[in-house]
Amino acid sequence: MYIPLKDTDMAKEFFVSIENLTDGSQLQLENVLSNLAFNDAGLIPVITQSVDTKEVLMFAWMNDQSLRQTLTTGLMTYWSRSRKSLWVKGETSGHYQHLRTMSFDCDGDAILCLVDHSGPACHTGRPNCFYLEVDQTVQKVSIIGDAK
Amino acid sequence: MYIPLKDTDMAKEFFVSIENLTDGSQLQLENVLSNLAFNDAGLIPVITQSVDTKEVLMFAWMNDQSLRQTLTTGLMTYWSRSRKSLWVKGETSGHYQHLRTMSFDCDGDAILCLVDHSGPACHTGRPNCFYLEVDQTVQKVSIIGDAK
Repeated sequence: MYIPLKDTDMAKEFFVSIENLTDGSQLQLENVLSNLAFNDAGLIPVITQSVDTKEVLMFAWMNDQSLRQTLTTGLMTYWSRSRKSLWVKGETSGHYQHLRTMSFDCDGDAILCLVDHSGPACHTGRPNCFYLEVDQTVQKVSIIGDAK
Repeated sequence: MYIPLKDTDMAKEFFVSIENLTDGSQLQLENVLSNLAFNDAGLIPVITQSVDTKEVLMFAWMNDQSLRQTLTTGLMTYWSRSRKSLWVKGETSGHYQHLRTMSFDCDGDAILCLVDHSGPACHTGRPNCFYLEVDQTVQKVSIIGDAK
């Protein structure tokens, strides 16, 4: 089994080395995956965005295994830090998230996934998890939407 | 000076306690800020999205101070983990990011900011940082855009 690199300096070196490659250049997927900057807990942040509305649905984490499973199955599969287990989004609710595109950022320390999905992304039943919106003028935070 | 909570269980309890509040309910901003789930390093993940195009521009981190400075000044201010200092985005390039809306997620462990901005968000000169796109069919990663 592949052990994710935890040496962020090595990851940094790799991603600096590729940043001047021109538009359309290609790298081996395995080469990039094996250089991603997983944190000390072996996790990397994931931003999940609706491919249709471009709404940011949720923020979560993947480990190496969940990342590879997501790519293989096409179903968004996170690492649940609370349950300490793989978490196929939708396996209980039926609201699966189907991966459309996956991108890594310039430092190799974050993943952006565009997904097709149905139903609420948030465990509260709201469409997305970012339902606490700052209203700076009155120094308040407003709740957006009702829990279902 | 306020010391951010590092007890994620306390943060979890707080965010569970508010999740059934109805649409439009309001909480004191300070109450929410002081319950956010900063990690052991005192940091919280930030997703920055263009208010116009809805493109996810970058992923970075804030500490309590940079979060409060962002709210006060309206200019996106991150914590640079490499430089170990506050980082006003655009202070060297001139490409400031002006905060339009800030939202917290259901667990209080991630921040989404919609911003007005000009110029590239990525240090490579590309429009956004997520320029490494997986092409699963050929097991490659494609470079999107040229460095400037």
